[in-house]
Amino acid sequence: MHDADAAIALLKGASAAAADVFKTILTRGPISRIDVARLLGLSQAAVTKAVGPLIEVGLVSDQLELPRDGQPGRPANPVMVVADALVSIGVKVNADEIVGVATDLTTRILAVDRRPLKVTDRDVVVDAIEATTARLGALLGARADRLCAVGVSVSGDVDTERGIVRESAIMGWTDVPLGQILSGRLGRDVLVENDVRALTIGEHWFGVGVGTDLFAIVTIGRGIGSGLHINGDVVEGAYGVAGEIGHLPLTSPDRICPCGRRGCVEAVAATPAIVAEVSRGHGRNLTIGEVVDLAHHGDPIAVSTFEQAATVIGTAIAVLANLTGPELVIIGGEAVSNFDLFETHLRASFAEHAFGAAGRCQIVTRPHTFEDWARGASASAIRRLAENR
Amino acid sequence: MHDADAAIALLKGASAAAADVFKTILTRGPISRIDVARLLGLSQAAVTKAVGPLIEVGLVSDQLELPRDGQPGRPANPVMVVADALVSIGVKVNADEIVGVATDLTTRILAVDRRPLKVTDRDVVVDAIEATTARLGALLGARADRLCAVGVSVSGDVDTERGIVRESAIMGWTDVPLGQILSGRLGRDVLVENDVRALTIGEHWFGVGVGTDLFAIVTIGRGIGSGLHINGDVVEGAYGVAGEIGHLPLTSPDRICPCGRRGCVEAVAATPAIVAEVSRGHGRNLTIGEVVDLAHHGDPIAVSTFEQAATVIGTAIAVLANLTGPELVIIGGEAVSNFDLFETHLRASFAEHAFGAAGRCQIVTRPHTFEDWARGASASAIRRLAENR
Ligand SMILES: [Zn+2]
Ligand SMILES: [Zn+2]
Repeated sequence: MHDADAAIALLKGASAAAADVFKTILTRGPISRIDVARLLGLSQAAVTKAVGPLIEVGLVSDQLELPRDGQPGRPANPVMVVADALVSIGVKVNADEIVGVATDLTTRILAVDRRPLKVTDRDVVVDAIEATTARLGALLGARADRLCAVGVSVSGDVDTERGIVRESAIMGWTDVPLGQILSGRLGRDVLVENDVRALTIGEHWFGVGVGTDLFAIVTIGRGIGSGLHINGDVVEGAYGVAGEIGHLPLTSPDRICPCGRRGCVEAVAATPAIVAEVSRGHGRNLTIGEVVDLAHHGDPIAVSTFEQAATVIGTAIAVLANLTGPELVIIGGEAVSNFDLFETHLRASFAEHAFGAAGRCQIVTRPHTFEDWARGASASAIRRLAENR
Repeated sequence: MHDADAAIALLKGASAAAADVFKTILTRGPISRIDVARLLGLSQAAVTKAVGPLIEVGLVSDQLELPRDGQPGRPANPVMVVADALVSIGVKVNADEIVGVATDLTTRILAVDRRPLKVTDRDVVVDAIEATTARLGALLGARADRLCAVGVSVSGDVDTERGIVRESAIMGWTDVPLGQILSGRLGRDVLVENDVRALTIGEHWFGVGVGTDLFAIVTIGRGIGSGLHINGDVVEGAYGVAGEIGHLPLTSPDRICPCGRRGCVEAVAATPAIVAEVSRGHGRNLTIGEVVDLAHHGDPIAVSTFEQAATVIGTAIAVLANLTGPELVIIGGEAVSNFDLFETHLRASFAEHAFGAAGRCQIVTRPHTFEDWARGASASAIRRLAENR
């Protein structure tokens, strides 16, 4: 498709102002040119000048069929992104499964491919990612020609600039140049991002974080992590590490974390720690399903173990709030499905330790599916293209 | 001075791009127009267009007498700010003293006024700030006509947008509309900022933080606070609270903080807590000077109290690093003068709890004087003007 090539070339060659205009239309549209100018502090002439070529290549439309009445807040002559002008692929790498999605520019899912992983060997994973992108391409059919970006997200310490997974405990990886390997295999740039940061980018651009600059995602479950969004961007960390809420020393030094440090949040509140503690109390190896059932039936050991975990997580969120002051904390991760076992003590310990107005931060849950995580990877790749970085 | 009025009007009416150009010349100059364009992602034409009026009103100069030789890295045809084109006043409000400085645009100090406070009653403090600005005006002489901004910094929860000190424990204030009161008294806009955030802005614009986006200032002493600089700006907090490192629950819940919460860092590591602990151990009321002397002479109670304080502070800095990943942490505050009593245990506990590459963060000390804090208030006011916010 020549149209798609022209659109990609336009985005890659965009000036900073033109990139800002596209980004604003993408995440805020439908929106009038006047509002774009106001939001960006640009002149209307500059916005009109930037919008012209975007319309020409089919990335943006001002021919919207919107009802004139009934929506009084609707701006006059709005522009919005033509969502399916380009498609993007996002892949979430888990220890036991690759989840890939093809999305449009607004991260609406067009196709899904999931394939199990038996081992986390990097060559096996790379093969699986390649197979997933090929399968998604086949599912896209003719639209595969519009592919503009590929993003891959992995848990751990990821150097996004250089595409290196420096450390991923879940995958057992150290210094894997995943971006370079995948770019070679797929014949195109591949963005590699930390999974929670990717989810945060997705929420900021297309999710509950739209319009909220200062928010955090906290994921609970097998691991405990967070993604912070502050001053217009996700926090990457000067050395690639940020949001490591699971490794804050907020509990007893007697509790040893899988990371080797003492007193980490994960040592008490991650799913394996909870399962181990309840198993120990009952003198037999339980599954997380059994532990959740026990807690739901009032088993004192299980109940108190969840309460202890919830207290530590609530304290960790208070720490995050006291330092960075978010408007909103979104709790996700697989343990959200049992949030009833956490909620009371989590909110109580947050309230106990939140300082002053930091306590006004709203805590909400959002059950992200594995596809949502893959959408985050796609959103990260779209963002890289749109921001022309 | 008509020149100063024209300069202020130009800055207040600047477009976002022009404001960025001025800010870059102010903080990075001498710098070539080409480098300004590169840093901002603007065209050279846009930079030249923005620089023209700045030169015309005397805010920027391209007639620099720079040695042609000996400085090979010096850019061709550089521009830089005419530092004394405008002056600014910064006032730091302490519980027992007002410290005011008049500075040029690069926060070089031109005049100082300090006056003791007997009480922290807000009317008394407002009178003192007014007297200090008047005195600084007199000291400036004819240059007082060039006054472009006034900034005041106070410890506590400050709503900078609305100029309200919502809570200041040290001053005993709640919801004091200091900005409005002072604007009325002085007949001009007055910026009110949290004192540590103001210091952080000063370090970012004119101090060791220049060129470093991701850094933090941690102040130790009577209070323990921090200012974070992330993604191009200081972190203000959605509700005005951020950087409250002194109130992270990192120590035993038996330790009650003056804020009323349990286990806060300040409950162990703030100067009053250290003095109280050593006094208790010796069965008599000691001063901080005596406590420091005891520690320097190897008194076991004093030594272990400082070690405990240092361990908690180091842990708190690790928490900050794990969450936000700074490149640099600058430790300031009055207790820095005795940093030898803190250093070993502080660095050890930081290393113990810093996660992965977050541990690469450099920890340095910088003995800020009270004038430096006032300079931070001046820098904040200059920034507000330069960013046209
Ligand atoms: Zn850990
Ligand atoms: Zn406290």
